[in-house]
Amino acid sequence: MTSVYMDYNATTPVDPRVLEAMMPYLTKVYGNPSSLHQYGREARMAMDKSRATIANLLNARESEICFMSGGTEANNLAIRGTAYQLKSRGNHIITSMIEHKAVINTCKSLEKEGFETTFLAPDEYGMISPEKVAAAIRPETILISIMHGNNEVGTINPIEEYGKIAREHNIVFHSDCVQSFTKLDIDVEKAGLHLMSMSAHKIYGPKGIGALYIRRDTPLEKHICGGGQENNRRAGTENLPGIVGFGEAATVMGNNRVTLAAQIGELRDYLQSRLAEEIPELKLNGHPEQRLYTTLNVSFPGCHRDLLLLSLDMSGIAVSGGSACNSGKVNASHVLTAMGLPQKQAESALRISLGKNTTREEVDYVIGQLVNSVKKMKR
Amino acid sequence: MTSVYMDYNATTPVDPRVLEAMMPYLTKVYGNPSSLHQYGREARMAMDKSRATIANLLNARESEICFMSGGTEANNLAIRGTAYQLKSRGNHIITSMIEHKAVINTCKSLEKEGFETTFLAPDEYGMISPEKVAAAIRPETILISIMHGNNEVGTINPIEEYGKIAREHNIVFHSDCVQSFTKLDIDVEKAGLHLMSMSAHKIYGPKGIGALYIRRDTPLEKHICGGGQENNRRAGTENLPGIVGFGEAATVMGNNRVTLAAQIGELRDYLQSRLAEEIPELKLNGHPEQRLYTTLNVSFPGCHRDLLLLSLDMSGIAVSGGSACNSGKVNASHVLTAMGLPQKQAESALRISLGKNTTREEVDYVIGQLVNSVKKMKR
Repeated sequence: MTSVYMDYNATTPVDPRVLEAMMPYLTKVYGNPSSLHQYGREARMAMDKSRATIANLLNARESEICFMSGGTEANNLAIRGTAYQLKSRGNHIITSMIEHKAVINTCKSLEKEGFETTFLAPDEYGMISPEKVAAAIRPETILISIMHGNNEVGTINPIEEYGKIAREHNIVFHSDCVQSFTKLDIDVEKAGLHLMSMSAHKIYGPKGIGALYIRRDTPLEKHICGGGQENNRRAGTENLPGIVGFGEAATVMGNNRVTLAAQIGELRDYLQSRLAEEIPELKLNGHPEQRLYTTLNVSFPGCHRDLLLLSLDMSGIAVSGGSACNSGKVNASHVLTAMGLPQKQAESALRISLGKNTTREEVDYVIGQLVNSVKKMKR
Repeated sequence: MTSVYMDYNATTPVDPRVLEAMMPYLTKVYGNPSSLHQYGREARMAMDKSRATIANLLNARESEICFMSGGTEANNLAIRGTAYQLKSRGNHIITSMIEHKAVINTCKSLEKEGFETTFLAPDEYGMISPEKVAAAIRPETILISIMHGNNEVGTINPIEEYGKIAREHNIVFHSDCVQSFTKLDIDVEKAGLHLMSMSAHKIYGPKGIGALYIRRDTPLEKHICGGGQENNRRAGTENLPGIVGFGEAATVMGNNRVTLAAQIGELRDYLQSRLAEEIPELKLNGHPEQRLYTTLNVSFPGCHRDLLLLSLDMSGIAVSGGSACNSGKVNASHVLTAMGLPQKQAESALRISLGKNTTREEVDYVIGQLVNSVKKMKR
């Protein structure tokens, strides 16, 4: 049976070069990076190399990269760590309604402890206006946390502008860059970032590893206590094969940024224009230009998302109704709702996300099956 | 150059069978277990199989196993999660002075938030007496957290007795079983455990994955917020290759429990008796009988630990001065100090930990080099 994966925003296959880089660390080089003996030193060297790779890509310092279990943990540490660290200075956090649940639910959990959150609404394209960010600032604001590339609709937010505002007001600025890291060029200095979340499994690295960029002048209350690993910022034996894989994945992506953007973006645009031709009522969700090259979020008014997903799944096609992390649920996406989409548009939306293994044949197959399903459903 | 690894309590090499089991999940089966499509379902099936394997080994239910990034995170969730969940009932935690830093430092961090901790002192063998546990209970005690097998000296604590006391007083009982899981036979029902921490990389599984057993009637405040993964108890895309590797590692260890205990225990005993013969002033640290079969912690009065470690490292031998998580530091081990060892004994202690790849030739080499180093140093 044909099998087509177009859910690259949910997760990606491990690049063969990444796996190859990891293999020595799943076999011969198994020391604990905290051990002082030769086995430990060898492990630590590999870990530091990965750290340098990621730092270089961001124009950061090695000591500013803190490895952890993934993007969700990075978002938790960034937000909780800042909130607890700065609670004597203020209790207000500015974020948005289009964030990943790892940000939204962490903020909501802090609200129970006396913190206050402003969830900014996006415009119709899913973008958060810098003016709204500036207007939301209060004397007690300690943190601005707004994502870069949105995982559901792909809209790219102007993080450099938020960074400028945060700097002017001496507020910590965090961005969830899980979807944009290595796809877009991010310079933490230019963007004025204090904290930035990354994840390996979105960029053809292994699951279970991510990192938080922590600018040198940004103290954070610890979230996971124990040994002194990661410069005393994140306890626990380091996931060495994961760290090495993450470094290699970032290298491969960094080296191919422009090529991949062109290759995948072209296929995405082809998919979009062909679907629009075949299905005149098709609606694009997200910004038409300022959008991750991987992502096409479109609505099929008159259809229901879950039936479309089922029908595509039976044809061997894997796409998504939204974030995988929410997809157990049947309600409409919180992102699309926040964008003010009419009910019919929100509940008929599919996220189709492409990756470097996507071929034109796959795209054609998806177009054929999707057009068929939609036409059948509308009859 | 000869190279001998005898630091298996710090971490272990991945078993080839474990790596083989992981490989499909680092290549072909890459779906996000939260995705509803075929790729996601295939991933979820593998995850659930691993969960069942681990549950069966502990006489637990599948729904009681919560995967996370490692033993440190498991200890953090167990202690913090209980403390926050039950803070309206009480603010007192009973633990011990011989715990891993992931337990000690989590408790210390809670003290800043108004919780109180009793750190029970061990006896001279590193054992925590059940009488002391019972005597420490107050009306406001909400949690008893005492480890099973100690990572530095190997002493095995009577968790079933703690469990009985906890049950009688309706107090939550947690045990850090990172070193004992699959080495000793643990039945969570018999032991009266509500919470139990495990880690894969201590049992020939990959780094970066562990689990917390959470008994069905044990609500915990969440530590990492976001999506609804792991029964809504631990957010973040699941580390599927890690989870599969963990399940296979537990299976292999479980199937070979008796054989490995005999094989490794015999080599450990041989090492111990030969060293005692050659170095009459040798002191054993830890319980002579109730001890993990992997572990030999011995002191060489008149020598200094760090010089011995250096000398052994130059001979290609990797042993440890204590827990790897603390080993950046030069102070004496908190475990040995708590056991009341004289300064000279504490600062000359080495932890030699053996594993399933350890050979008699390796043991003989270590004996030769160690005896040489000690004799030179004493001259």
